[in-house]
Amino acid sequence: MPSARFIQYGLGPIGIGIAALAVQQGHRLVAAVDIDPAKAGQPAAAFIPQAPADVLVTADASQVLNAGADIVLHSTQSRLALVLPQLLPLIDAGLAVISTCEELAFPWHHHPVEAASLDVLARSRGVGVVGLGVNPGFVMDLLPVVLSAPCRDIRQITVVRVVDVGLRRLPLQQKVGVGLTVEAFRRGVSEGRIGHVGLPQSAAMVAHALGWALNQIEESIEPVIDSSRTVRGVHQVCRGTYTNAHQITLDLTMTAGAERPRDEIVIEATPPIRATLEGGIHGDQATYAILVNAIPRVLAAPPGLLLPTYLPAVPPDRRG
Amino acid sequence: MPSARFIQYGLGPIGIGIAALAVQQGHRLVAAVDIDPAKAGQPAAAFIPQAPADVLVTADASQVLNAGADIVLHSTQSRLALVLPQLLPLIDAGLAVISTCEELAFPWHHHPVEAASLDVLARSRGVGVVGLGVNPGFVMDLLPVVLSAPCRDIRQITVVRVVDVGLRRLPLQQKVGVGLTVEAFRRGVSEGRIGHVGLPQSAAMVAHALGWALNQIEESIEPVIDSSRTVRGVHQVCRGTYTNAHQITLDLTMTAGAERPRDEIVIEATPPIRATLEGGIHGDQATYAILVNAIPRVLAAPPGLLLPTYLPAVPPDRRG
Repeated sequence: MPSARFIQYGLGPIGIGIAALAVQQGHRLVAAVDIDPAKAGQPAAAFIPQAPADVLVTADASQVLNAGADIVLHSTQSRLALVLPQLLPLIDAGLAVISTCEELAFPWHHHPVEAASLDVLARSRGVGVVGLGVNPGFVMDLLPVVLSAPCRDIRQITVVRVVDVGLRRLPLQQKVGVGLTVEAFRRGVSEGRIGHVGLPQSAAMVAHALGWALNQIEESIEPVIDSSRTVRGVHQVCRGTYTNAHQITLDLTMTAGAERPRDEIVIEATPPIRATLEGGIHGDQATYAILVNAIPRVLAAPPGLLLPTYLPAVPPDRRG
Repeated sequence: MPSARFIQYGLGPIGIGIAALAVQQGHRLVAAVDIDPAKAGQPAAAFIPQAPADVLVTADASQVLNAGADIVLHSTQSRLALVLPQLLPLIDAGLAVISTCEELAFPWHHHPVEAASLDVLARSRGVGVVGLGVNPGFVMDLLPVVLSAPCRDIRQITVVRVVDVGLRRLPLQQKVGVGLTVEAFRRGVSEGRIGHVGLPQSAAMVAHALGWALNQIEESIEPVIDSSRTVRGVHQVCRGTYTNAHQITLDLTMTAGAERPRDEIVIEATPPIRATLEGGIHGDQATYAILVNAIPRVLAAPPGLLLPTYLPAVPPDRRG
């Protein structure tokens, strides 16, 4: 695999994991950005194992635009509105971008103007920009789309994902409300602090692949509680409706101690498909690998705002 | 979806099913080729429901090169050597090709000269050429490659596929030796009449995606017998070895009355992946859909000899 020169933008736990894997796979870190005062000014190697000793973390992203990078690995926030001001100067400087921003995975439905702006800018600068991750970006959208290749007359696509957050990072447990009262959970949901971001984007991405113009995308977010009415986590259901007979249902449970963690994909079609991934694809390691494995594929892709579904499994310029 | 103008090349049961689905999906049949004297000269509509009434089957493929088609849907034989003389004039005439030829799915390992010739010609004519199907082309190669996206440090990929041929077409039952004696089975294997073609191609395709230069690809073909020593079907195991610790194992059982038909994909890596498709992806309907669903993706792909792993799930020129 050819190696790339990359900028790590965002040194939270996910960003650090991505950068560490990229370095381990032979890509070269040329700059690192984080606004945390405890990180800015420090050597990147203090956070990213094996990072080059001469790279210092900077809080000022404008300073890295000419660092000679091919691509930016970006991991800051979930919401497109917060991420867009970070991405535009990078793209304008001719840098490809792979981001964990959940709303970037498929922004055309909920943010069509922003999506078109990103697309036009990325095309004019000749670079690819894409939002990737396990969810959205893989298990509830790309994977069902790939699995639908042998199908005709697709009627329903249902994905059930069960994640046990009990053994995961504390921030993830907090994000799904573990230990809260129901009232505090609901307040957190209304304030946007609690809940998983990305199910509507996944539903829209699947619909786009099928050529379905969805009439409605609705989402519910409910607490999962134990016998003492303490919140154990979240249950979210997102349904995208094309017709009454053509629906996409994404059912996500993330709780501490969830029974039988798994991903299930059911496609009602001819022939029907029923796929189960016991244990489920989760863990931060999966996110790191999805981003880093995508580097050569994004660099080889046609320019523009890309979708996870646009990236071939293998870059087509790599001849047999 | 834009519709394509296509030539159906090969009107066996699979070719007819492919053409019928393509017509049903709105693509236009402009010519049909088959050497069977019982079919040549007949209206294509006698075999393909809803086919245009003015298309006659011809045994002479040179007559269809100027029929104004975009693409050829080709379904004749499994072996590249037999198919190559059919494909070269089509590609030379500027026609894209999707073929069920098993050895075309990944010809670079076993037929590198033929692969390079096809690639050069397809590039020079600006068309894509690809071998697709359920197996090879999907369940034992593309799907494990897609499922490996969240993985690092991949060590072993194992695919177990169990197909019950009891309810399938008679030619398929004959191909796996149902009802034969062990001696007749082995004679059929040695004469190339019995056994599934494509496991080594799938192993090589997976290795190519992983960047593994395989040192060895070995394959065994054994009969599965019942208590009266009558053959119930075939058990084939193909192993591609990169190092002792890095192997691809494809284990295929096709028997009449197979218990628990399924596809299982196990990836030993970080994180590990274990996916099960209960019932398995099989049935001729799946083959038809894989070919027809690929039409817009092949027409949008960069020219050359394509691989199933090169085709994005959605053509990237279809904007959100």
